[in-house]
Amino acid sequence: MIRSLLAASVAASVAASVAFVASPAFADTLVYNVDGVTIDEAGEVKRFTQLVFDDDGFITHVLERGEDRPEGIEFAMDGEGQVMMPGLIDAHVHVMDIGFAALTLDLSDTNNLEEALAKVAEFAEANQGRPWIIGRGWNQEKWGLGRFPTAAELDAVVSDRPVWLERADNHANWANSIAMERAGITADTQSPDGGRIIRDENGNPTGIFIDNAIPLVGDSVPAPRPEDRDAAFAMAQQRLLANGITAVADMGTPVVDWMTFRRSADRGDLRIRIMSYADSPEVMELIGGPGPTPWLYDDKLRLNGIKLYVDGALGSRGATLKEPYHDEPTTRGIAITSPAQLRNRMSRAAMDDFQTAIHAIGDAANADVLSAIAELSETYKGDRRWRIEHAQIVDPADLPRFGEHGTIASMQPLHQTSDMFMAEARLGEDRLGGAYAWKSIINVGGRIAFGSDAPVEPADVFAGIAVAISRTDKNGKPFGGWRAHEAVSREQALAAFTSDAAYAGFAEGKFGRLVPGERADFIFVDRDPMLASPSDIRETEVREVYLAGKRVFAR
Amino acid sequence: MIRSLLAASVAASVAASVAFVASPAFADTLVYNVDGVTIDEAGEVKRFTQLVFDDDGFITHVLERGEDRPEGIEFAMDGEGQVMMPGLIDAHVHVMDIGFAALTLDLSDTNNLEEALAKVAEFAEANQGRPWIIGRGWNQEKWGLGRFPTAAELDAVVSDRPVWLERADNHANWANSIAMERAGITADTQSPDGGRIIRDENGNPTGIFIDNAIPLVGDSVPAPRPEDRDAAFAMAQQRLLANGITAVADMGTPVVDWMTFRRSADRGDLRIRIMSYADSPEVMELIGGPGPTPWLYDDKLRLNGIKLYVDGALGSRGATLKEPYHDEPTTRGIAITSPAQLRNRMSRAAMDDFQTAIHAIGDAANADVLSAIAELSETYKGDRRWRIEHAQIVDPADLPRFGEHGTIASMQPLHQTSDMFMAEARLGEDRLGGAYAWKSIINVGGRIAFGSDAPVEPADVFAGIAVAISRTDKNGKPFGGWRAHEAVSREQALAAFTSDAAYAGFAEGKFGRLVPGERADFIFVDRDPMLASPSDIRETEVREVYLAGKRVFAR
Repeated sequence: MIRSLLAASVAASVAASVAFVASPAFADTLVYNVDGVTIDEAGEVKRFTQLVFDDDGFITHVLERGEDRPEGIEFAMDGEGQVMMPGLIDAHVHVMDIGFAALTLDLSDTNNLEEALAKVAEFAEANQGRPWIIGRGWNQEKWGLGRFPTAAELDAVVSDRPVWLERADNHANWANSIAMERAGITADTQSPDGGRIIRDENGNPTGIFIDNAIPLVGDSVPAPRPEDRDAAFAMAQQRLLANGITAVADMGTPVVDWMTFRRSADRGDLRIRIMSYADSPEVMELIGGPGPTPWLYDDKLRLNGIKLYVDGALGSRGATLKEPYHDEPTTRGIAITSPAQLRNRMSRAAMDDFQTAIHAIGDAANADVLSAIAELSETYKGDRRWRIEHAQIVDPADLPRFGEHGTIASMQPLHQTSDMFMAEARLGEDRLGGAYAWKSIINVGGRIAFGSDAPVEPADVFAGIAVAISRTDKNGKPFGGWRAHEAVSREQALAAFTSDAAYAGFAEGKFGRLVPGERADFIFVDRDPMLASPSDIRETEVREVYLAGKRVFAR
Repeated sequence: MIRSLLAASVAASVAASVAFVASPAFADTLVYNVDGVTIDEAGEVKRFTQLVFDDDGFITHVLERGEDRPEGIEFAMDGEGQVMMPGLIDAHVHVMDIGFAALTLDLSDTNNLEEALAKVAEFAEANQGRPWIIGRGWNQEKWGLGRFPTAAELDAVVSDRPVWLERADNHANWANSIAMERAGITADTQSPDGGRIIRDENGNPTGIFIDNAIPLVGDSVPAPRPEDRDAAFAMAQQRLLANGITAVADMGTPVVDWMTFRRSADRGDLRIRIMSYADSPEVMELIGGPGPTPWLYDDKLRLNGIKLYVDGALGSRGATLKEPYHDEPTTRGIAITSPAQLRNRMSRAAMDDFQTAIHAIGDAANADVLSAIAELSETYKGDRRWRIEHAQIVDPADLPRFGEHGTIASMQPLHQTSDMFMAEARLGEDRLGGAYAWKSIINVGGRIAFGSDAPVEPADVFAGIAVAISRTDKNGKPFGGWRAHEAVSREQALAAFTSDAAYAGFAEGKFGRLVPGERADFIFVDRDPMLASPSDIRETEVREVYLAGKRVFAR
């Protein structure tokens, strides 16, 4: 894509006539010949063929075919008939983890234990200098293993160094024996509240650590150096932009990540927009002080509020359920935060106008958060946009409550296809009435923002749209869709990954739509997701990405 | 001071002729009719009568009487014959403490214990809502008390709440009984390494905590809220600007202070320039990552490096001496950092190009730091600008070493007059050969930066200049000056509070001098410190302060 020669010469002659004015000032840019689609001010899908933005990167006009172009155009860019969409927004990611994951051992594509062990051995061989082998992405459910893997299995392939591997869902880790030894883990080590050390029949740790037990070993892993963090962040940005994602909500930002974002921005290297949710009240206060930060760096970074947790995940049986797990009737999950703690932390945030985004996966967790929102709303009036992150398993009786108090359900379509069979196992067929219930939540007046939970799932919005409208996985399974009545329309899917994801982060009016006054964050893709089949949508190629009118990625 | 009507009408007509150009763009401003003085590019004093700066606040011309004005002037400002100086730079302050001190009980002007106790009682009465009475500035030496004050004396005036009062030098604190009770201090509490709890003949704590013992109580003081920090920072900026100070080195910045600076800057409220030195290796790395930050916010904030400590202060006998204290022969002071720790921390900083600023007061401390600098310089080449903060008592045999390895002595003239009699007591007459030896350090080729150590001393540069050139206090005592051969010239004093203070923070070429290419940071004062008597210099009134050509203070 090049700026047209004609427009460039016009600009040159204008610049010559007012020689003391630097030529880029006040230069509007027209992008014409595009097949544009966006959510508009009314929340409807709008089609357009031309877009104009000013030198500060704000959209000034969005024109349909035949509409008159405004005066003052200095540059023109031929869209070559490509599909133009708003820059995509992923409403739930872990930015730094995306970068670190890209730089570390990835087991997410392994199909069985043997493949995984071979990959660990190969990575250790190729990375002799690394004192710890760190990896992620394993999933014993996907492997069909029927049990957790063990330290002994890892020892067989790496015995000279600690190995520490995070499960795909973040809620369990797998260590080899040296890693446990370094951390001082023995048969006497107690499982902490909200966590669990898996043990064999003799009471010896098998190498698997669940939820709050993860730090027992994790705290012994050497911290990354600042250079490592900077490299990981650069990698994360590149991965997101390559997927057409120009803005994200970063869920659970520790202060060291915030500082990494700022270092990048201070160097002029921040190329995505980040809506940040601090990982603790202390970090929230340290960064924001008496309230959320302003939008920084031309609307590229803001601390919106805080991420809170009430339960764990389904895979590790950490999600809290109203009734016992179908496939492990002795447990109802692990509550990470008590009802009183949750309300205290929400209150602590809300009193200073910080937004709260609360992780809740099980139906008991969701019920408690919905109750907490109702209670807090009595005191904290106004536009609070309480976010529930994941909202995976909801008691159908609780679904209508998503329509109250401006609650936002921040959900991840890809979790539905990754988890569907596991969810059936965990809950049994009868308790899935409010599982991944996107459409039901919209129908009761709730607002949905879509995300990926990357790196738990790939930050792949097009795969997310395909699932959102079909409830089928990449192989088109199950035929007709899993609980297909919860599929959303293409328009709803687009909104949830653009305008509504922006709204969920108080960014409406700034980005997320291609409408006058918002930032010119747009992408060119090779097909129209509003028309293509789900399997075709998954193959969408992002060709170029623009942030505030500046190209930040090209294939 | 108003922009002249003539210039304004010129600007208006220019703006009208190129209507689409916002009028402030590319508008040079002339300030004429000034009695200007600065250090110039050659390090010499330069006089000028006119100064031109551009719209970005950079100086473009500095003109002497009769020199031709450049083309393109759009605004003109009549200096009304006032004395114009560069914005002053205080090379050693504790920014947030200046603000908190201004908002808390100040005992620095009390002349005896009774006055102090009366002031404590009055403050407690006036601040019923405060859960702790926090104050500072007491000095039992100045009171002629001959001993430390006691908790019992405080209890007699405030018995309902904790009272916690910092000594003028920061190296000792005074508690009442409730404060000690809250902190769990008893006769059994041990003095920590590098600290001391003063006890009576029965071993009971008397209420005085020295150096590393201070946190035993201090950690129980409720932390200020973010709003309190923001208010304190606003107050600190106001106090500094009112004194003509446009830039400071902040010595020992904790991360919470750094975040406060950034919050202020992000709101557009940062009105001074801060060269920051982190208070720990962890904070240095958290903020700077792999190296010093860039200059942020148009050269208003930068993390330069780290503040380290090797000893305490003279007043509390924490400064480390080569021979025992003259007035307490059982001690040579308290080393806060071992020689090995010092070198490790300096190395940790230097390897990532962070600057080190090392607190050293006693002659043993200074000797150790000078040795460490020599050793580190073998590995870390280049322009390191190792700073020694205070450098108060130097063995004359060590003085020549200040001329080596680009060492910078960051010294505080007001300490000399505050400490002179105490120093005589602590050291005896014979060991003062290298005491506050500004001139000797310059004479061996060392570089001096001057500061105040505010709020330990007032951030009063004019008082500092008066002392620097006279070695006498505000009463003109001692007659002829204390060790008067160490007085510096007016030119040297001006440089140490402007251009050399900038150099000490890697800011030369950015601010500190009124020369083309630097920022137009200047002040108008009511007299010429290059001509006035020391007692007159102390009365200098700062009338207006400009930062990058924008007025940020007016009386």
